[in-house]
This record gives sequence, structure tokens and C-alpha cells, in this order.
Amino acid sequence: MANARKNQCREAREFQTPSSGIFFKAGRIHFEGKSDFQKIQVIRNATYGNVLLLDGLVQTTEKDEFFYHEMLVHPACASHPSPRNVLIIGGGDGGALREVLRYGVTSARMVEIDARVVEVCKKHFPWLRADLKDKRAQIIIGDGNAYVRETREKFDVILVDSSDPVGPSAVLHEKAFYARLKNCLAPRGIIAAQAGSQLFHVDHHAAKMVFLKKMFKHAHIYNGPVPTYPGGTWCYIFLSDAVDPLRSRSLRLPDGLRYINLETFKAAFALPQFMKERLKA
Amino acid sequence: MANARKNQCREAREFQTPSSGIFFKAGRIHFEGKSDFQKIQVIRNATYGNVLLLDGLVQTTEKDEFFYHEMLVHPACASHPSPRNVLIIGGGDGGALREVLRYGVTSARMVEIDARVVEVCKKHFPWLRADLKDKRAQIIIGDGNAYVRETREKFDVILVDSSDPVGPSAVLHEKAFYARLKNCLAPRGIIAAQAGSQLFHVDHHAAKMVFLKKMFKHAHIYNGPVPTYPGGTWCYIFLSDAVDPLRSRSLRLPDGLRYINLETFKAAFALPQFMKERLKA
Repeated sequence: MANARKNQCREAREFQTPSSGIFFKAGRIHFEGKSDFQKIQVIRNATYGNVLLLDGLVQTTEKDEFFYHEMLVHPACASHPSPRNVLIIGGGDGGALREVLRYGVTSARMVEIDARVVEVCKKHFPWLRADLKDKRAQIIIGDGNAYVRETREKFDVILVDSSDPVGPSAVLHEKAFYARLKNCLAPRGIIAAQAGSQLFHVDHHAAKMVFLKKMFKHAHIYNGPVPTYPGGTWCYIFLSDAVDPLRSRSLRLPDGLRYINLETFKAAFALPQFMKERLKA
Repeated sequence: MANARKNQCREAREFQTPSSGIFFKAGRIHFEGKSDFQKIQVIRNATYGNVLLLDGLVQTTEKDEFFYHEMLVHPACASHPSPRNVLIIGGGDGGALREVLRYGVTSARMVEIDARVVEVCKKHFPWLRADLKDKRAQIIIGDGNAYVRETREKFDVILVDSSDPVGPSAVLHEKAFYARLKNCLAPRGIIAAQAGSQLFHVDHHAAKMVFLKKMFKHAHIYNGPVPTYPGGTWCYIFLSDAVDPLRSRSLRLPDGLRYINLETFKAAFALPQFMKERLKA
């Protein structure tokens, strides 16, 4: 009883803006520790299930991770005529990997900087444990930015599952990084990247699209809900010299998806008027 | 200084689920009081501006209210060939009224149960003060459910800007209420109603659509972001015997909108796979 009362008082809180945020009552603290890179927490919440926070920012919850991971992976993978060789930058929680493995890929390689995140997530997010048994999956512990500078391999799809454009992952939102990604793309290749909050990062999107539109023939922002992320709607970027997602004729979505279907796929590319105006400006 | 420190500690918190929610640091408490119906608070938050809470639930913030009010009002009003006589049930904060007045209506009548909400919002949400000077606007303080039972008037568009399907407004989500609304519709009339959270109220949507599809030739759920509402994506219902919003040829959106344009209008009717499956079941 004393224990229960103690648990009731514990909660995880994320300041999503300097003056507001989200809180989760923690039924149980599964893990709390520091890696070389960041503070890692996994808590149990009655509504959202297991919740992963890095440096206090929500990365993944069992209840709503599918919104994010489906939207990051499928617009690129389903638009590609035949994705074989896929690279994931970041994505230590394994959600993106799980979605990639729905396709007939020959290789799904994840480059995650923080081994501790993978280790902790393997324990508390069951899909990761399962997917790592898949022979096509490969995890490299290392710096994604350095990896794409050095590799000679080419990829059909590259997915950037980084943290936000403000903070330590800022480098993964810069022009030089995208130039390196482009060097690693196979002919007809596609890049998709998480880009930040629709409501709070619109200036970042605008600045980024200025250089991306010069670098790629097709550069689109698309968006969709992620309930536990700041502003509740998240943005992603689709980049390709060969494939326009809105004119793709070979869109083949795998079975078993919970958010994306043909209608929400198209709808994702419709942008609010305030974004359209800011991107034009 | 002591005062500043005291203010820093104050915050408004909404439990959006039994174990999670949203918090707002309150730079200033503009108003805190009880009406005959509910607890009313208006706080000042550095990110969201003035925030209205009723019984502790966020109704409106200056920063993100446009998502909700545009999505409630424009799909119905822009689909109607010539909306003249518009009824708003609830909507005491005046956001829906403001959007209706963008059209060439002859009458925009709001039936709000709580005079105190209107009085407080007039002070802290500037658009309401402005719109009440418009001769086409009319506020009746009364029970919307009783009003639609008794009135003999017919309306081109009826907008239900109620609180949620769980709690005191539950009656405004029931079959008998929608039957009364239908009685008040002019030929070619359209109803739009807020319906609750995409993530948390999907069972309510499914139950409601069973009877609404029998009552109206065209009954659609549509959805869009509202950052400060539970789950971050909100659902609305479009009902008409005459107009199918997806086939409307006379869609005329007014100038000055911040969320809706022709693309987001269409995109709003695309439903996530988990909703489609639940609505079919």
C-alpha cells in the first residue's frame, strides 16, 4: 500500500515548449540510467504502455508509436518500385526497422549511436527483440553522420529516424548531411526523414526546404498525427530525384498497417494553409 | 520578485486520460470562478496565449483554436451552396461564430447554456467582443437541446460546438438530439458537430455512426489536428441529405483561413486504418 502510494506520485514530464508539456503517471519505472550520450528512461503508463524518454523527451510509446513509424517508413518504401537495400539512421527503438521488414528487402541496416538505447529497448519494446532475429536486420552501433560520409554502399531507401532539429541531433537536419545521404542513394532511391513539429518547427521546415528543393527533383514535406509529440502533428520529408510520391503508380502498401492506407497516404501531403504560406515566403 | 516566483509555480493541468495529460505554466490567472454549470478558468500561458478551461478541460487557446474552429465550421459552410441562416449549439468562446461570419449569412445564432462563459470570453478572447458587434450575430443563453426541440425555424447549417461525448454534454451526442437537429434543417441543410478524440473516442464514433448513417444520406467522420486536445487529432461529423462534401462542386472557402485550404479540406476525410476498421466492424 505504501508502495502503491509512492508509485502514484511518480510521473514523467516533458516540457514540449518552455511553458507547457505532457505528463505521464508512472505505474512503474522500468529503467532509468545514463549512457555516454543521454539520459534514458522507460516508464510504464496505464494509457500509453511503455514509454521511452531520452533526455526527458518522449521518443516512443507502445500505444502511439505506430503513427510515427508507419509515417516515417511507408511513404518512402511503398513509393519505391522495389526496395532491397534499406538504411536507417538512428531508430534505436526498432520501430522503423519493424516497418521496413514488412517489405521484401534483402538488407535493413540500422546505424544507431547509442548501444544502451538498443539494449534497453530490446527489453521493454517486444518488437525489437523479435525483429533482431530476422536475418535481414543488422544493427551497427555508430555515428550515422560519419557512417554516411564513409560508406561506399548505395541504398534504395534511407530513413532518418533522428531526434529533433533543436538539440544534439541538429547536425542531422543540415545541408551537409543531406548531401552525404544523396551520395549514398542508389538510382531511383528515396530518402525520408523526420522533420519536427508541425506547429512549433515551421521555421525549421521552411529553412530546410530552401536547400532541399535545390538538391532534389522531388522534395516534399508531409505530416501526420503523433499524439505524444509536441503539437500532436509531426512533419516528415520525402526526397528523391526519381520518384514523386503523389504521382507514383506502383504504390504497394504492406498488410497489417494501423495508420496508413491509400487515403491517409495522400492526405499526408496536404499541408495547412499557415505552412504553405510560410514555405512559400 | 516573491510574486513572480509564486506565479512560476502555478499551472493548469488537464488529465486527458486517467494517467496522462497536458500542463500549462500560468503566467497569470485571468479568471477563476464557478458558474451554475461549471468551473471556469482563463489563464495566460507564454506559448498558447490565453487558455480557457471548463471543469479543468482545455476548450480554447489563442494559439491553436483556429485548427478546431476552422474544421468545425468550414466543411459545412463551404459545402453549402448558400448558407444564410446558421445555428451554433454551444460555442460560448465565440470562435465558431467568428468563422461563420466570414460567409454572407443573414443570421448567425449561437445558443450557449452558460452566460458566464460568454461574459468571461468577451473579456479574454478579443474576437468574441468584435463579432458581437456584427448585426448578424445573436446570442441566446439557453439549453441547446431544448432549443432545437422547440424552435420552428429552419437552418441551412447547424454547428454543434459542444463539450465531449463523455460527461455532461453526453446528451448532445445521442440519437434523439440528432433527430431534433434534423427537424430544424432547411432543405439542402448541413450539420457539422465536434465528435471527440481520434485516438481515445473511437468506440463512441463507431456507435454514433451506426445510427447517423441510417438517419442521413451522407454521414461522414472527418478529422484534423488540435494540438491541445486529447490525442492531438480531433474528429467531427458531417451530416446532410443533400450535400456530399467529397463531391461538392461549389466549395467556396473564404479568405483568411490558417488551417483549411482545398487540400486539407479533402485530406480531413481520409481516416486512419484503425478507424476505418473499427467503423466497419
